[in-house]
Parts: sequence; C-alpha cells; structure tokens
Amino acid sequence: MSVTPRERLARVALSHLAEPGDVRLLRLARTLGPEKVYDALLAERELDGSRSEVAERLVLLEPERRLDEATRLGVRFVVPGDAEWPTQLDDLADAEPAQERGEVPVGLWVRGPLRLDEVARSVAIVGSRAATTYGEQVAGEMAAHAGRHDWTVVSGAAFGIDQAAHRGALAVTGPTVAVMACGVERAYPVKHAPLLALIAERGAIVSEAPVGSAPMRVRFLARNRLIAALTRGTVVVEAAVRSGSLNTAGWADRLHRQVMGVPGPVTSGLSQGVHELIRARSGLLVTRGADVLEVVGAAGVGLLEPLRERPQPRDALTPRQRQVLDAVPVVSGAPIAAIARTAGLGVDATRRDVHELYRVGLVEQTGPGWRLSEQGRL
Amino acid sequence: MSVTPRERLARVALSHLAEPGDVRLLRLARTLGPEKVYDALLAERELDGSRSEVAERLVLLEPERRLDEATRLGVRFVVPGDAEWPTQLDDLADAEPAQERGEVPVGLWVRGPLRLDEVARSVAIVGSRAATTYGEQVAGEMAAHAGRHDWTVVSGAAFGIDQAAHRGALAVTGPTVAVMACGVERAYPVKHAPLLALIAERGAIVSEAPVGSAPMRVRFLARNRLIAALTRGTVVVEAAVRSGSLNTAGWADRLHRQVMGVPGPVTSGLSQGVHELIRARSGLLVTRGADVLEVVGAAGVGLLEPLRERPQPRDALTPRQRQVLDAVPVVSGAPIAAIARTAGLGVDATRRDVHELYRVGLVEQTGPGWRLSEQGRL
Repeated sequence: MSVTPRERLARVALSHLAEPGDVRLLRLARTLGPEKVYDALLAERELDGSRSEVAERLVLLEPERRLDEATRLGVRFVVPGDAEWPTQLDDLADAEPAQERGEVPVGLWVRGPLRLDEVARSVAIVGSRAATTYGEQVAGEMAAHAGRHDWTVVSGAAFGIDQAAHRGALAVTGPTVAVMACGVERAYPVKHAPLLALIAERGAIVSEAPVGSAPMRVRFLARNRLIAALTRGTVVVEAAVRSGSLNTAGWADRLHRQVMGVPGPVTSGLSQGVHELIRARSGLLVTRGADVLEVVGAAGVGLLEPLRERPQPRDALTPRQRQVLDAVPVVSGAPIAAIARTAGLGVDATRRDVHELYRVGLVEQTGPGWRLSEQGRL
Repeated sequence: MSVTPRERLARVALSHLAEPGDVRLLRLARTLGPEKVYDALLAERELDGSRSEVAERLVLLEPERRLDEATRLGVRFVVPGDAEWPTQLDDLADAEPAQERGEVPVGLWVRGPLRLDEVARSVAIVGSRAATTYGEQVAGEMAAHAGRHDWTVVSGAAFGIDQAAHRGALAVTGPTVAVMACGVERAYPVKHAPLLALIAERGAIVSEAPVGSAPMRVRFLARNRLIAALTRGTVVVEAAVRSGSLNTAGWADRLHRQVMGVPGPVTSGLSQGVHELIRARSGLLVTRGADVLEVVGAAGVGLLEPLRERPQPRDALTPRQRQVLDAVPVVSGAPIAAIARTAGLGVDATRRDVHELYRVGLVEQTGPGWRLSEQGRL
C-alpha cells in the first residue's frame, strides 16, 4: 500500500494536533484512518454553529506548509505505509497504554541519513542522566560492541547513560538513533548540540512531536515507548528506583521485547533501580556487549563465548593425579604413605604422581612430607 | 529412634575411615546401617587370610578412645537419630553427587553451645577468600541483618567473605556456624584463631572430618555440600568465575535450596562468577539482608519493604494538576493559554492549577510564561 498525499497531510495535521502518545486520538486514527478523523475534527461545531476550538486550530494548521517547512530543515515525515516505516512500531497497537500514553504514532519526524526501516537489528541502551563514570563506561562499551556487530544503538540523547551509548556507537562508526521528546531540529539538552549534529550527520534523530515542539514531561513518557518499540531489547545501565529509563523498560516488557539490566555495586543508589528490575521484574542480567547481543540476537548472531579464567595446571592432570592432589594436605606436610592411604591408592603409584605434581608446581616438600603449594591451593 | 552405643561407635569408626563425602561408603552406611558396614569391613581378609589394610586400620582405631579424646577437647559427635541431628542434612541422600562427593555424613563433630537442630532457620553467606572491601561490607551487613532477625549465618570461616559473614553475625550476637574442612579443634586458617574461638564460644564449629584431620581439597568440596545442606539458601557475595563458593551454590541448587548472588561492578573480576550465577544459572539477585530473608523466609518472615525514594511533591497532586504539569514545557516558558491547550483543559482551571504548582515549587515563571522548575523536572 502506498500513502496518498491526502492521507499524509491528514497525518501531518494530526501530528500537530495530538500530543505524542495520545491514546484516544491515535487509536481513532489507526482504526478509522487518519483522513476520516481529520475530516470529522474539521467539521466539529459548537452548539451555536461556530467551529469548535479543535476545528479552528485545524483550519489554521496548513499541513502542507508545515511539511514544506520541515523539508527545508532537512526533516522528513515517515508514516505507516511508507517503505521507510519501521513496522516494529505497529506492535504498539496491541500494547496496553501506560500513564495515558501509547499507540502507534501517526508518523515520525526524522533527520539524518539512516533509514528507519533499517533499524530492525537494534538495541536500546538507556539509563540515568546523573550516571556515574562506571555506568557511562559500561554503556559506552556495550554500545561500541553492538556497533561493531552492526547493531543500531537507540537512546534518548540525554545526559549520562544516553549520551555515552550514542558516543560508544559513533566511536566505532556504528549506526545510532536518538529519539527525542521535542522537535528533531532542536538541541535538547543544549550542551548536546555537537553530539546531536553528529548523530544527524551519520544516524537519525527521530521524534513523534513535530518541528518546533518543546520538550515536556508527557513527551518524554511518549518518547520512551518509541525507544522500546523500535528495538529488540532495552538495556538499563544505571537507574535510581524512580527513573524514566525504568519506564522505557516497562514498555519493552509490555511489547514483549527483551528487558536487560547492568548490575552495579549494591551500595550505589544508581544501581538500585536496575537491581530491582532484575530482582523483581525479571529483567535479564547483562554484563557486557556480548551478553546483550546474545539476548537480542537471532540464532548464530553474537554467540556468547563462555567466561573462563586462564586454564589451571590442575586441568592438565590425569584423574589419578587429581585424586592424589586432593589427598595432599594444605598446611602441614604428610608422608607419601599417608597421602596414598587417603587417596586410596598404592604407595608406589602415589609417589610417582606426587613427584609429577611437584614438577608442575602443585605440591611442595616440607620436612618429612608433602603439602600443597600456593599454586596447588587454587 | 535413639542411637545405641554400638551404632555410635561404628559411626565414629567410619568417620575416621572414610574421607568426608565418600559417596560409596556413606551410601552403604546409610542403606545397610553403620554397624553392618563396620562389621563387614572389620572382617575383610586378603587372599592369604590376613586382615585387609582397611580391617587392620579399623582394629587399631579404638573408636571409644577417639570419642573420649574428642569429649576432652569439648567436641561432641552428633549422628542421625540424635535429638540434635539437623535433619535437613538427610536431603543429601537424594542429591546427585558432585566431584565424587555427596551423601549424608555418618556424623558431625561439633564444638560450641549452639545446637545443630536449632539451625533450621539459617542461611549460608559465602564467597571469595580474596574479597574486596565492598564484598566484605555487604556480606557483613547481610549477616548482621540475618542475625538481628534470629537467622543463623552459616559459612566456612575462610578469609574474605566467610569471615565477614561470621563477624557480621557475631557483631549483633546472632547465631553463627562455621563448617570446617579440617578437625573442629584446629584453627584454619591460623589467623582466624581468635574468630574461631569466638564462634566456639557463642555458636558452633562443625566438621565431618574427625578431630586431628588436616584441611585438604577433597574435604573442602565435601564441606561445601554441608554448608548448602544445612541452610535454606546460599548467598554468594563475591566469586571469580572459578570459585569454591560456586561449588556451594551448585550444591544448594541440587538440594533445592535457594541460590542467591550479590551483584557488583561488571568491571570487577570478583563479581563475574556471581553475575554468571544470576545470568546463566538462575541465581536470584539480592542486594541486602531483607532481600535474603524474603527469599529464604517462611510466609510472614522478613517481609520485604519495597524500595522507595522520598515521596515527591508530584505524588500529592490531583490527576488534573498532574495533567497540567505534564503540559508545562521544560526549557522556554509557555503562556497559560498554550498550556491549557496542550493539557486539553479550560484556561481558568489551568491558571488555578499552574498557580498551585508554582506554590509547591514545581513550575517557575520565565518572562511571559511558565516552565518546569528544577524540582518539577524530577
């Protein structure tokens, strides 16, 4: 299906009229079609026959001009039915709303070369604005790992974890998407103007709110659902018990995306929200990029290499040598005969094994007997 | 059933003959009865009619004298059937052995006033010997919390996490049990002599190995199963990927006890084993004593108070005030009319609400309009 110019303009108008995530209006637009809703609102009359306030606003809106203005700013409007539409957002139709926000947006305002239909292999990395160095470091490394494996990193361009995630992806020239709570032409926060410029140059900046929109709480809540819906999973890196990123995780959960959390010191307030997410809300614990890709990855993608410490000398022993080693005391030495008895083996065989264990540095001689060396105690 | 003197002596003899956790011998003792096994071993003959080595050792063993010697050292021998026997250890009969260790011990050597049948309400707190200050602090606080709620803290008296757990319990005069890999009269490690003296004075020191036994690797492995079996759950506080405490956690899992882990920085090697336990082996994440008691506690015990931050001014708002607050911009101020439109409310009502929000410090005036205050952005 291709989108008619009239439908696109109706969507532009509704995008200006409705607040992001306005469940009632977006649901009407989705079920009746945007044109029908637009026409009905335009026809709304007060009891005295005059246009309703909403109709008045729609008349003044001039969607065509709004679209032109956006285009002049390098902003495109991507709507359901467009080839670029990220169809994973359609899952929002079935997800339960939260805090009166929800539903599929009528369209997305986009700035930057990255096509949204190419962000299916993507993961959200979000967290506290007041992050610690530890949190920013982990977020940056995870994002870089994702980027190196050609996964798109989606976040909110906020201070703290968000910016670390974007920067980690950019550092390895990985694709990254910033989902905003204001118009995509705005630098919010202002200090992130250079970062946002870089994302607009290499990735994409996305918002449900049209050009000119200021950031507002309700728009942050609506924005969070888009971050969750765009991606296969959401990683929360640091979050206090009350944190917007937990709202994003909640959306990921309701949308049947993977919910992940990075642990930290239990003494850090900024890890409490994440621990709670893992402890009581069945978030998956992840500690590094490979864990994340294992969780969100399709079969064969980002396969996890199990954590291993260096091989120990013990690993190279025969079962009998190990049996002998297990019978060597830790503190005061024992003679071969006593070790043989404990091990349940003959004295000669035991002597040979003890000497081999000595050769590889696992036991040491002490007076009349043998005991474990420093190495042998590991 | 009460234990006959003859059975008790047979158990003393087998306790000296068998290595802790010797699956084959302990299983025979449990299924055939210790006396039958003792008699059979005593009757063992070589082909030439002479006593077998095992029979020879049993003849020389003099269990009665061993028991007397132990008693003189203030050590008692508690066996299945005794009133003091901790019956939760009987679960070991059904648990799959690991590394050739397993089964119900023939008896336990005990020093200290705490009765073992009173440690049903108990939790194991274990971890790395090379623990960090962070790990020791968390272990100590968890143990103190358990102690304050009259839960017994069981651990292995080792350096690092173990000693911190015992000390945390002792600090609040809570009951604590040290399970040793050597005889209970020994101070191992030597530096913990004062700590062990204190545990012997107020709690209990327990071992499957008789008085005089030296610590050996095989005895540590066997000891770990007792720590897991004695308790309702095992908390691993810090553990590298290869760590004895993960062996204890494995036993807890096979024994259908709760397995818990304390997260830490993902950058700390000493938390990797714990994260792996939570991530891949379904250990429960716990961050504080209350979490632990919630996990191991019977209904109504140690009920968890949910984590909350201080109540926020936002919490006291009416739904309409919240709707208005959500429509107030973050950066540049908006006039009342614009806020009313965004909120979908009348101008007069909105003005009243904005003034109330100003009174409680959530919005501030800026030029011709209103925006969120620092407080209002939280």
